[in-house]
Amino acid sequence: MANTNRRILLKSRPEGEPTHANFEVVDHPIPEPKDGEYLSKTIWMSLDPYMRGRMAETKGYAANVNLGDAMVGGTVGQVVKSKNPRFKEGDFVVEYAGWQSYAVSDGAMSMKLDPGAAPLSLALSVLGMPGMTAWWGLMQIGKPKAGETVVVSAASGAVGSVVGQLARLHGCRAVGIAGGKDKCNYVVKELGFDACVDYRAAGANLFKEIRAAAPKGIDVYFENVGGAVQAAVVPQLNDFARVPLCGLISQYNEMQMNPGPDWRLLLVKRATVTGFIVSDHFGQMEGFWKEVPAAVKAGKIKYREDIVKGIENAPEAFMGLLKGRNFGKLLVQVAEDPTRK
Amino acid sequence: MANTNRRILLKSRPEGEPTHANFEVVDHPIPEPKDGEYLSKTIWMSLDPYMRGRMAETKGYAANVNLGDAMVGGTVGQVVKSKNPRFKEGDFVVEYAGWQSYAVSDGAMSMKLDPGAAPLSLALSVLGMPGMTAWWGLMQIGKPKAGETVVVSAASGAVGSVVGQLARLHGCRAVGIAGGKDKCNYVVKELGFDACVDYRAAGANLFKEIRAAAPKGIDVYFENVGGAVQAAVVPQLNDFARVPLCGLISQYNEMQMNPGPDWRLLLVKRATVTGFIVSDHFGQMEGFWKEVPAAVKAGKIKYREDIVKGIENAPEAFMGLLKGRNFGKLLVQVAEDPTRK
Repeated sequence: MANTNRRILLKSRPEGEPTHANFEVVDHPIPEPKDGEYLSKTIWMSLDPYMRGRMAETKGYAANVNLGDAMVGGTVGQVVKSKNPRFKEGDFVVEYAGWQSYAVSDGAMSMKLDPGAAPLSLALSVLGMPGMTAWWGLMQIGKPKAGETVVVSAASGAVGSVVGQLARLHGCRAVGIAGGKDKCNYVVKELGFDACVDYRAAGANLFKEIRAAAPKGIDVYFENVGGAVQAAVVPQLNDFARVPLCGLISQYNEMQMNPGPDWRLLLVKRATVTGFIVSDHFGQMEGFWKEVPAAVKAGKIKYREDIVKGIENAPEAFMGLLKGRNFGKLLVQVAEDPTRK
Repeated sequence: MANTNRRILLKSRPEGEPTHANFEVVDHPIPEPKDGEYLSKTIWMSLDPYMRGRMAETKGYAANVNLGDAMVGGTVGQVVKSKNPRFKEGDFVVEYAGWQSYAVSDGAMSMKLDPGAAPLSLALSVLGMPGMTAWWGLMQIGKPKAGETVVVSAASGAVGSVVGQLARLHGCRAVGIAGGKDKCNYVVKELGFDACVDYRAAGANLFKEIRAAAPKGIDVYFENVGGAVQAAVVPQLNDFARVPLCGLISQYNEMQMNPGPDWRLLLVKRATVTGFIVSDHFGQMEGFWKEVPAAVKAGKIKYREDIVKGIENAPEAFMGLLKGRNFGKLLVQVAEDPTRK
């Protein structure tokens, strides 16, 4: 056991793109659990686009990180000391320990993981928050019907990849939008989407390429990105289209408001746009648990991990995430995973 | 009976604001009903914002008016000749006869009116399409809960006035937005809204004045207008706000797309925007018929008519409607109403 707790603190708030100057890597003593608490050693740490919002001063939908505090985030760890009867030494847990190599917790928001059921890291991707986000947005808001066309942006990412595969499992045409040839190939050849549009290569032809990939129009647009992709998709919505509004990653570094689509486009098509955040719905995930783990086990929902080693590399990896540099679910491996060969 | 059928034809498509040059007033022979048809004489003709869309070339949600055809629209008429057993001479009907003083119909879309139940013209306002629009948008999309704040733009109009009164009947704070002091006074003093913001007088203070009128934020925004009002309202939406998107009258004369709000505003608040058109839902109006006619009869939902006499004055009145010059439901009286003293 390393004898310090390496932590990444928010040092200053970014103006536009985050830089290394916004973060500080510090080594603190490993904390001691009090009665009712346990100490865990972080193995896997999730990097997700929403964290950009937590760095800002303006109020988003969750409390922002205070300057000088460790960045927040979901993690998988192993209990190394426990004064909580629910958790014993050696247990694996998925928790919200943030950007640090050790954490003390009362366990209120922690869940034990069975390392025999699935790889531990999946609790941060397809079997965790991103998978639930995909399922809730697609199934509960998008309500896809067999034969419809589902378009998802950031299609090779942790959320988008599950959206498209679920859409296929429910009989829909799944069209991805992703940045780069490799990601598009992966989305079609590995994940089985019907088509994928490379928005970077498409440039000014984006509208036309989406039209070619979704010739019957778009019934569900699962929105992860905003910006030019949004502008090209929204005019192609069909009557009664549903738009689960999950994220707008292309805008997160923007300091000013960006115009959205003319609402006449929504009015004429009687479209519905619904913003959501999965944490509002963690208690309503029966359908997710019924469907997704079995589909993952059966290989019907595939996943890809983009692993960065060493917690001190989290800031760099996170900056890359906001630019789409990752390929698959971005994870930081903070310590050895004893269950992984 | 006048011996000609005065009709208003669409002569050319407007670029921006409609002008007299876009319309042509012609006198045609009164048509003869064939077997299965009846001939009606139009008494009341409704002018509604959606008609601007029907004048355009670009495809809206309903077939556009062909050049040389009569403008479309809802009417109340009296049967003067009938070869249809369902309709007999003297019957009053609400129908979709368009901008003409006589019309032949097979009655498929016509409904007989009982002149003893309510004034005939109400079938074109609070007991007709605008009332149903208000009810559907507020109750089925807005789903207001007692104690919430409902904001409606174009609040003194045929739709907005019903939205706010229904909101009050369901225990909500009703805030109107209207143009001019007279309309605002009417909305508060006659219709019983809790507050009304005069967007013309407010100018650059629109955001602040809406904040003052809706200090707890906005749970339902019933959107009729778009433009500056939309821009001031959307940032004030509460978490889980619902936005029934009914109309965008301030934009109907715009030739180019206008930016809508940044979707970050919808995402962070988990808001839902739903475009709708009432004709999709004419078969789902049980709740409307259960609630609204009784409330009108009891004086709990009040209405105001802005009556223009003479069908030849319809183009001018319609141009004024798009600028908010009417005050209350805009109707053209095409012929004497024998039931009205």
